[in-house]
Amino acid sequence: MEKAGWVERVVELLKKEKLRWVYYSNVSTNPRDSQVQEGVSLYREQEADVVIGLGGGSPMDTAKGIALVASNGGQIRDYEGANRISYPLPPMLLIPTTAGSGSDISQFAVIRDVERRVKMSIISRTLLPNISIVDPTLLLTQSEDLIAAAALDALSHAVESYVSRIASPFTESQSLQAIQLIMKFARRAVESRELEYLEQLSIASNAAAMAFSNAGVGAEHALAHALGGMFDVLHGWVHPVLLPAVLRFNSSKCLNKMAVIGDTILGKRYGSHQATCDAAIDKLDEFCASLGGALNLRQIVSDPSLLDDLCRIAAGDVCLLTNPREAGWEDLLGICKEAW
Amino acid sequence: MEKAGWVERVVELLKKEKLRWVYYSNVSTNPRDSQVQEGVSLYREQEADVVIGLGGGSPMDTAKGIALVASNGGQIRDYEGANRISYPLPPMLLIPTTAGSGSDISQFAVIRDVERRVKMSIISRTLLPNISIVDPTLLLTQSEDLIAAAALDALSHAVESYVSRIASPFTESQSLQAIQLIMKFARRAVESRELEYLEQLSIASNAAAMAFSNAGVGAEHALAHALGGMFDVLHGWVHPVLLPAVLRFNSSKCLNKMAVIGDTILGKRYGSHQATCDAAIDKLDEFCASLGGALNLRQIVSDPSLLDDLCRIAAGDVCLLTNPREAGWEDLLGICKEAW
Repeated sequence: MEKAGWVERVVELLKKEKLRWVYYSNVSTNPRDSQVQEGVSLYREQEADVVIGLGGGSPMDTAKGIALVASNGGQIRDYEGANRISYPLPPMLLIPTTAGSGSDISQFAVIRDVERRVKMSIISRTLLPNISIVDPTLLLTQSEDLIAAAALDALSHAVESYVSRIASPFTESQSLQAIQLIMKFARRAVESRELEYLEQLSIASNAAAMAFSNAGVGAEHALAHALGGMFDVLHGWVHPVLLPAVLRFNSSKCLNKMAVIGDTILGKRYGSHQATCDAAIDKLDEFCASLGGALNLRQIVSDPSLLDDLCRIAAGDVCLLTNPREAGWEDLLGICKEAW
Repeated sequence: MEKAGWVERVVELLKKEKLRWVYYSNVSTNPRDSQVQEGVSLYREQEADVVIGLGGGSPMDTAKGIALVASNGGQIRDYEGANRISYPLPPMLLIPTTAGSGSDISQFAVIRDVERRVKMSIISRTLLPNISIVDPTLLLTQSEDLIAAAALDALSHAVESYVSRIASPFTESQSLQAIQLIMKFARRAVESRELEYLEQLSIASNAAAMAFSNAGVGAEHALAHALGGMFDVLHGWVHPVLLPAVLRFNSSKCLNKMAVIGDTILGKRYGSHQATCDAAIDKLDEFCASLGGALNLRQIVSDPSLLDDLCRIAAGDVCLLTNPREAGWEDLLGICKEAW
């Protein structure tokens, strides 16, 4: 963000309006509880009263965490789960520079509890920012890798929210729109980095985020959070590894919906829902592979004996509640073995 | 609402929670500025601090008007147009008993200025209620006529928002979803009054309202408001008369989009966008006719010499700003003559 000049741009605008500001940039991938806490201290010291988050999912989630703890007290881990926030947050303005996390338009913030090696989902309507500036121009400074990783995240949001237990007709249409746009434009965006295609990914990311913000995600995100917590891997690159195996596991409970996804991305249906579903998963698998990155879990997890722990952690993730098929830690272990 | 037992039901719930309440029921079709003002006086006298609106578009818009004037002062006409509200409104809870107006989920309130014989559109994000209870069970007590009139209103919202100048990919998918559901379920809902079909209309009405709340409507609504202001006709029944003629007038400026509507409601495309558009308008015309009501403007306006005035009023309606084709009062007159 600094190298791309966006930080300077924001600072210039604040100066022009004669607004006091303080800059906080200690944010890593899979942002940590301690980074939130440090931001909170700065917020309080400086008597700040507004939070601006600039960047991808990590800085935006950190901004949300800071706004939350600064106004509600305690520590970020006190708010893990859904609807545990009591007091209003300071005004938040988010400026996404990737098209994927959807943090700019969702009620989620995901922060890593370093001690427990867990990525906590914090879910509350009050985590929606007051304003988001969603401008595809800001996507032009991304690397090809980042475009791809973000698009994969949006794809996973779209697919998981579509088959979620609490999906509604309102989220379903947004999920399908996102799936369609990502399958159509992600490769072109990565290859050309042209504004036209990046804009389509921006639309897709927002549609997917409106869907998952209301319908939640599922087992794939539960596992992705556990992987991020234990191994600090970049969230977007986890999806190609896990998504196909999770969808195969879930498919018996959402065959009709998987057939609709198939119809959407293949432009046709096969002889049965099962056949269309299988073809859809193959197509998604092939699409993920075409964007690069690891395809096997063993490329991320060095030691298979760690899988038990990983799956026990994932089994406690709030995202699992909306997965279409009930899954205990042993089911998740089966998925990991398939993805191994 | 009283006869159907819904008023009593709300009162019971308030009593159970030991909340003080006052009941205001002086609301007519095309609700009047004086009815809003009377409600404001009552609100103030009783030192109320929350507004609950129960019913179709008229009671909900009246509730919004009362909440607005009670908190911002002056008269309802002071707020005509977009974004003219300065102070926060009291909490609003809306409970729709029709599936069409979308007032429960939109930033619009439409109130009749009786002196000027004009229906004023008041548009502001702050007119969104804090809570809406959208329960299709409440639709079961509607007459067949009311189901049809409300569905026609939702259809017009969906079509006009889809071709609006400020439509976005987010509103477009909602508009199309609404069009599809209304064409599929409205007749069945009217004929059977079964919950299953009414629920689909409820989904459609909400999708259409999310679309028009963000994308606006167009010339058809501008004319419908003028007709409501001058002749106090039921809003829903105006659409079958005007919609086809407005779409024919607009079509040169939104041929691609009209072809998408055609594809959606006909399940196929013809040789050209123009041909698909024409077939779509015919199909919409036929569909409107199948729901009953007047089909010619002369059945609503007794005297053709009044059309000039009507169109001059419509030409000043804020809804015209988002119409895909520029239209002066003489263009609107042409539309009225076609619909005559």
